[in-house]
Amino acid sequence: MKTLEKPVPPGGTIGIIGGGQLGRMLSLAAARLGLKSCIYNDTPDAPAFQVTQNAVAALYDDLNMLAGFADACDAVTFEFENLPAHAIAHLAERVPVRPGAHALAMTQDRLTEKTFVEKLGLKTAPFFDVTSAEQAREAFGKLNGKGILKTRRFGYDGKGQAKVASADDTARAFESFKGAPSILEGFVDFSYEVSVVAARGADGAFAAYDPPHNEHENHILRRSTVPSQLTPAQVSEAKAMAKKIADALDYVGVLAVEMFVGKDGGLLVNEIAPRVHNSGHWTIEACQCSQFEQHIRAVAGWPLGDPVRHADAVMENIIGAEADAWEALARGGALHLYGKKESRPGRKMGHVTRLRGKA
Amino acid sequence: MKTLEKPVPPGGTIGIIGGGQLGRMLSLAAARLGLKSCIYNDTPDAPAFQVTQNAVAALYDDLNMLAGFADACDAVTFEFENLPAHAIAHLAERVPVRPGAHALAMTQDRLTEKTFVEKLGLKTAPFFDVTSAEQAREAFGKLNGKGILKTRRFGYDGKGQAKVASADDTARAFESFKGAPSILEGFVDFSYEVSVVAARGADGAFAAYDPPHNEHENHILRRSTVPSQLTPAQVSEAKAMAKKIADALDYVGVLAVEMFVGKDGGLLVNEIAPRVHNSGHWTIEACQCSQFEQHIRAVAGWPLGDPVRHADAVMENIIGAEADAWEALARGGALHLYGKKESRPGRKMGHVTRLRGKA
Repeated sequence: MKTLEKPVPPGGTIGIIGGGQLGRMLSLAAARLGLKSCIYNDTPDAPAFQVTQNAVAALYDDLNMLAGFADACDAVTFEFENLPAHAIAHLAERVPVRPGAHALAMTQDRLTEKTFVEKLGLKTAPFFDVTSAEQAREAFGKLNGKGILKTRRFGYDGKGQAKVASADDTARAFESFKGAPSILEGFVDFSYEVSVVAARGADGAFAAYDPPHNEHENHILRRSTVPSQLTPAQVSEAKAMAKKIADALDYVGVLAVEMFVGKDGGLLVNEIAPRVHNSGHWTIEACQCSQFEQHIRAVAGWPLGDPVRHADAVMENIIGAEADAWEALARGGALHLYGKKESRPGRKMGHVTRLRGKA
Repeated sequence: MKTLEKPVPPGGTIGIIGGGQLGRMLSLAAARLGLKSCIYNDTPDAPAFQVTQNAVAALYDDLNMLAGFADACDAVTFEFENLPAHAIAHLAERVPVRPGAHALAMTQDRLTEKTFVEKLGLKTAPFFDVTSAEQAREAFGKLNGKGILKTRRFGYDGKGQAKVASADDTARAFESFKGAPSILEGFVDFSYEVSVVAARGADGAFAAYDPPHNEHENHILRRSTVPSQLTPAQVSEAKAMAKKIADALDYVGVLAVEMFVGKDGGLLVNEIAPRVHNSGHWTIEACQCSQFEQHIRAVAGWPLGDPVRHADAVMENIIGAEADAWEALARGGALHLYGKKESRPGRKMGHVTRLRGKA
């Protein structure tokens, strides 16, 4: 098995599982550093395939193809966190996988994740394990009238989530998830949402970006704005929380910690994403080292880059048919389009970042 | 033949002739806009091949391969200006070529170029056509004691150039160029060198970057710094000179105009490069729209991007074995490595850009 006592040198190959926009932007960042990338995706028309010489189209649990992929790479990472555990283990026997299996396992499952966060002494919304309709009703009784039922695994952009306002609601929502193991979270009456996008290097170094204020529409991120309204003390606290999580996971790479800012100014951990994150896209223009380059640096065992922000920025997603207006969007800022053929409703087609001089 | 009445839409393919670092950075910029690129290079190990799904390795005068390449692209451009005229014509019969054959022809030859610049009413060093050793001696007699003999075509990074201080020197230099048609330029006692990197869109729009101060070592660009010491009036004059050149060539794409700043503050045109330019690499970090994206926008018929500089910047080339220190270089700024296997003396292996807050 290959080990990574030394950094992957320029000319080496970083394997990226997942060929969507995150894989694509990771690959572009690797190229800038003189690193090659090999993209693994379960369909042949992946956006990231367009930007690399080395691509593998195969199912995510095809152990033979994964083994061949591992052999072609000096280190492997992910654009998404839901690869099956046995596939990750299969890769990890052959090539350094960053972040590691432990961090992925911990964040793939909302129950494990929230339990882990709570044990670290960080605040979360109240949450309860739900494995039956009866348990769903019972759990609802422990909340103060409102909650959200979420499947423990495979949720994103609001999928596998339902707001509930009664015990009956909760039981029905559980049944609509076809009995998938779920958690019921108490409704949090927060002021707004922020996220800390941060990196931990193979040497334990830590570097956090300034937390953006995130606004959602229809459960999809609409806009991230830096700076947020957080006070300097809240910014420090938010970054320290992300560091606590990254250290406890012995994490290597970029991770994002979504947080609610309570009416009392307190910070609650909502979700951990063990990867580069939509709310960090503004770092491409506003920082010397983007979240994508930062992740590649960590995965390759390089020194982390400078996360300091040199401009204020607003990043807005381009969703579905909004991409038809690409020509007007190209006039208004730094336009990124992801190379997706079809614009389906709710599909992230690109984003635009607008910089403003730093105050 | 394909025409370009409309812009190339996202998903379209930009053909790039030349697969070195400029082609590579053009391809990365195209990807950001959701455009595919097809790279054409005369060897199979081109740095730019690493960052695209579509590559053609064939000789630059292989008309069959060029025709197939043209068919695969919606518009074609270049990373270098020295494609043979008949090859450009062959492409231009099949696909829009930007910049066009006329602009390339005008700038491929130092004599044609300087004559063109002089006719526009812009200043250059005194220059004389040299096609024989005798003419070389004669031409030297018209200078005031110092000059530089240059081959009319195919020179770069000081190749095909010789400083001369006597008529004998000049004749010998001409012979060392094996009789290649040359020009003798009078030595200009300038204070420093700047360049205007600018773009002209298919609609005639013009956008110039702030001119950097350029420092050379051994005829190779060492460092570009923005802002330069030019006064605001000189900056305006320099940009106006570049616009005059671009308009007169009916230019589409990015071009660079290298200028000498005389001891009296006057600006002399030294050289026109009909392509993205080493002295514009700092625009990747310091501007919302880099020179690479700007060129792709122009070639694709898109609106030009914003060339405004949001930070001060110093760009330094990484030459030859300097690239061995990549790990230290990665700590010091925005590092770009070009994916070249071997570091030969004088070979540009990458660059580093360091940003400073804008004053």
